[in-house]
Amino acid sequence: MEHVQQVEPFDYVIFGATGDLTMRKLLPALYNRLRMGQIPDDARIIGTARTDIDREGYVARAREALERFIPDDVRSPVLVDRFLGLIHYVTLDGTRADSQWGDLSAVLSEAPADRIRVYYFATAPQLYGSICENLHSHGLVTPHSRVVLEKPIGTDMATATAINDGVGQYFPESQIYRIDHYLGKETVQNVLALRFANPIMNAIWSGEQIESVQITAAETVGVEGRASYYDTSGAMRDMIQNHLLQVLCLVAMEAPDSLEADTVRNAKLAVLNALRPITDETVAAETVRGQYTAGVVGGQSVPGYLEELGQPSNTETYAAVRAWVDTPRWKGVPFYIRTAKRSARKVSEIVIRFRSAPTTLFGSAPAGNVLVIRVQPNEGIELHLNVKNPALDAYTLRTADLDTTIRMEGGLPFPDSYERLLLDAVRGNPVLFIRRDEVEAAWRWAEPVLKAWSENKVPMQTYSAGSYGPETSAEMLAERGDKWHEDME
Amino acid sequence: MEHVQQVEPFDYVIFGATGDLTMRKLLPALYNRLRMGQIPDDARIIGTARTDIDREGYVARAREALERFIPDDVRSPVLVDRFLGLIHYVTLDGTRADSQWGDLSAVLSEAPADRIRVYYFATAPQLYGSICENLHSHGLVTPHSRVVLEKPIGTDMATATAINDGVGQYFPESQIYRIDHYLGKETVQNVLALRFANPIMNAIWSGEQIESVQITAAETVGVEGRASYYDTSGAMRDMIQNHLLQVLCLVAMEAPDSLEADTVRNAKLAVLNALRPITDETVAAETVRGQYTAGVVGGQSVPGYLEELGQPSNTETYAAVRAWVDTPRWKGVPFYIRTAKRSARKVSEIVIRFRSAPTTLFGSAPAGNVLVIRVQPNEGIELHLNVKNPALDAYTLRTADLDTTIRMEGGLPFPDSYERLLLDAVRGNPVLFIRRDEVEAAWRWAEPVLKAWSENKVPMQTYSAGSYGPETSAEMLAERGDKWHEDME
Repeated sequence: MEHVQQVEPFDYVIFGATGDLTMRKLLPALYNRLRMGQIPDDARIIGTARTDIDREGYVARAREALERFIPDDVRSPVLVDRFLGLIHYVTLDGTRADSQWGDLSAVLSEAPADRIRVYYFATAPQLYGSICENLHSHGLVTPHSRVVLEKPIGTDMATATAINDGVGQYFPESQIYRIDHYLGKETVQNVLALRFANPIMNAIWSGEQIESVQITAAETVGVEGRASYYDTSGAMRDMIQNHLLQVLCLVAMEAPDSLEADTVRNAKLAVLNALRPITDETVAAETVRGQYTAGVVGGQSVPGYLEELGQPSNTETYAAVRAWVDTPRWKGVPFYIRTAKRSARKVSEIVIRFRSAPTTLFGSAPAGNVLVIRVQPNEGIELHLNVKNPALDAYTLRTADLDTTIRMEGGLPFPDSYERLLLDAVRGNPVLFIRRDEVEAAWRWAEPVLKAWSENKVPMQTYSAGSYGPETSAEMLAERGDKWHEDME
Repeated sequence: MEHVQQVEPFDYVIFGATGDLTMRKLLPALYNRLRMGQIPDDARIIGTARTDIDREGYVARAREALERFIPDDVRSPVLVDRFLGLIHYVTLDGTRADSQWGDLSAVLSEAPADRIRVYYFATAPQLYGSICENLHSHGLVTPHSRVVLEKPIGTDMATATAINDGVGQYFPESQIYRIDHYLGKETVQNVLALRFANPIMNAIWSGEQIESVQITAAETVGVEGRASYYDTSGAMRDMIQNHLLQVLCLVAMEAPDSLEADTVRNAKLAVLNALRPITDETVAAETVRGQYTAGVVGGQSVPGYLEELGQPSNTETYAAVRAWVDTPRWKGVPFYIRTAKRSARKVSEIVIRFRSAPTTLFGSAPAGNVLVIRVQPNEGIELHLNVKNPALDAYTLRTADLDTTIRMEGGLPFPDSYERLLLDAVRGNPVLFIRRDEVEAAWRWAEPVLKAWSENKVPMQTYSAGSYGPETSAEMLAERGDKWHEDME
């Protein structure tokens, strides 16, 4: 069993408390942490939203959410009742100064003034600034307050700056927690252990041994009912600018001196700043974008993106980028990043392909070694080595996959990454949250690509739902003799 | 299924054809190769021994051997009959010039003069020379003849030289095949693939990354009925001077330019020549010897070595050596070699321990990485890495074992190493056989140890049957902070 330590008593104030994210992720995550004994009895979860319901009405919704999103075998009536007992609700429009701030203030003032207070913004990002302003003007920003911001932090540099300025006016950077749930994933965090706690990995972790890096996050689901929202975002904004660049940072960063938040974030920032800018001249060669067309996923016929959307669109559901980190360690090593909706397979993984051996000892050249970090599903690590083909006639090679699956103690399923991140905000540990300068460096790199795409400097490809993506994506890798993981032998 | 190619037609002439090795290993190995389709119909197996029986009498013994040593599910009456049909027998004392050489000559002359002819000496090594002399004087050494010599090639340098001289007078070195069945093991041969077909392994295969190497061959069996023979040999002569030094050579050698026999053997010889001599001054520090006492193995009480032998003895059933390869690659890296009778576990393995990380990133220093090559049982490779302990509270480490099992195609059991080696002699491929200079270099290193032991310069330790060996062996490793594999966390 996991050995957990209770956190300090806290008030978790959720803006957007009736929304999908709260019901689907936040409340179940907090319930699970209570179930593991991590949440003290006098902690409080204070929902706020414009919806005019009373506490009982909100508790009923919360109960329904737990019934829907917590599996039967870990949902105990006793624990659910204890959890619901922590809940308060305040009807409030966070963007309006004249809303019922007094009600929220009254609830909060019941706790000691030095209590840890987390404001979680599960609302549209353009509202963050005005909510902060109102929190400030109603005297609700204490030294022990933190604000957690959900993505997307903007849709480009200008909107990101506006959001960060709006929040930053009332909260110092040290109290701002920009959540990136990818960093909450165990196997993503494991990249640091793999690299820096294993001398043999550390020794081969550079362009001297590494030929290329692939970072993939692919889903089998499409946009379905969310098409009109998704069309304002797209694969680059939804996945690459934030999650996958963060993964790239962990793979590419220099060794930090400690795991202190700012030390790690400085090291990640250095990677983002070293990303080679993609320009109008290089964008067609270094990027691929596409939209899925009708196809078959998991045996089911599914419609194409434009059919789901019901109108023409210039938004990509697939994006692949060949990125370059211009540091001595990564000279000449492409980082292939891709994300897809309606892919053949749901998979998040990091694939490190090592250089081939310059040996003629075994007749044909041996395959390059490959290290795969499976972020999900089936979290683990595999290392593909060449071994002697066990046969009596000749000395030939085959590949062998050394494999380990990473499991929680006791074989328990991995906690949702929100579980860790929600309590890290309580603990005041921002190491897995994104600093403002990281967000901006990521936009600095992504924005020119998005601009070039919007100007159609890169043709919009298509791919069948249930395939691995546009052919041009495989061609981009083939230019350097590389292949996407599923095409490797 | 394994894809096999038939070898050329051959005559396999076995001296010592009624002995245990022939019945237990050679005939079953040849049967299995016939079963796999590798032996042509007109091949012949010609047994010779002093035993005065006719062909039918010998075939009956051979049939009995197959019934005993070939599992039912792969022993088909049709194939057994076909195999026995290949067999001839000549009553012959190979050491006497006036024995029935004419009978052997008559059988051999039935085949074309250029037929491949293998003389397999499954006799006492002191007879090799006189058998060769007789083969020569009776005109039986053809350009297509090879002679296969079983171990032991001597019990010291002088006797080894005598044997090699005796054979070498009548056969050129290129026609002499000194068998070492350890080199026939798939996972031993795999060391070359692992090192030289995997750039990432090649990159970390030196003292820069490697802290120490362990080579273990341990058996649970004792000497039982063979005590009086074993007492003339001992662990050093029986296992270390030949098998384990050969394994050490494969682990330590520089990359050969090809897998040609002499290229590989030159590279191995260079290692043997670089072994730091053990002197009267260092022998007590660098070696441990011991005899098992009564104990429990696999739940059974078993007697001690001296009880089995029935008299006092200065012969070791356990030997451990800290060897040093004085080349730039292996500067400061101990090679711990050990072998034991009546050990706690039957295991042959190579354990590479890598240096620890000089990092303070994770609080405590991470465990050193370990690579284990399992020669037997459960042939395979495992790599111990440090990973993040999947837990929500803190960033701590645990070890994860990446593992692969190496299996024959179709999941078939591994062929006995004799199967490969017997047919390599037919094919004329001596890469897995030991060259004379290797034997001599190995004796040059081993002889001073044996001499010092015989003079009691190293105390004879005891260890309980069923334990891992004498305590002083663990102490020898502890001097440098090392531990035998079973003592590692």
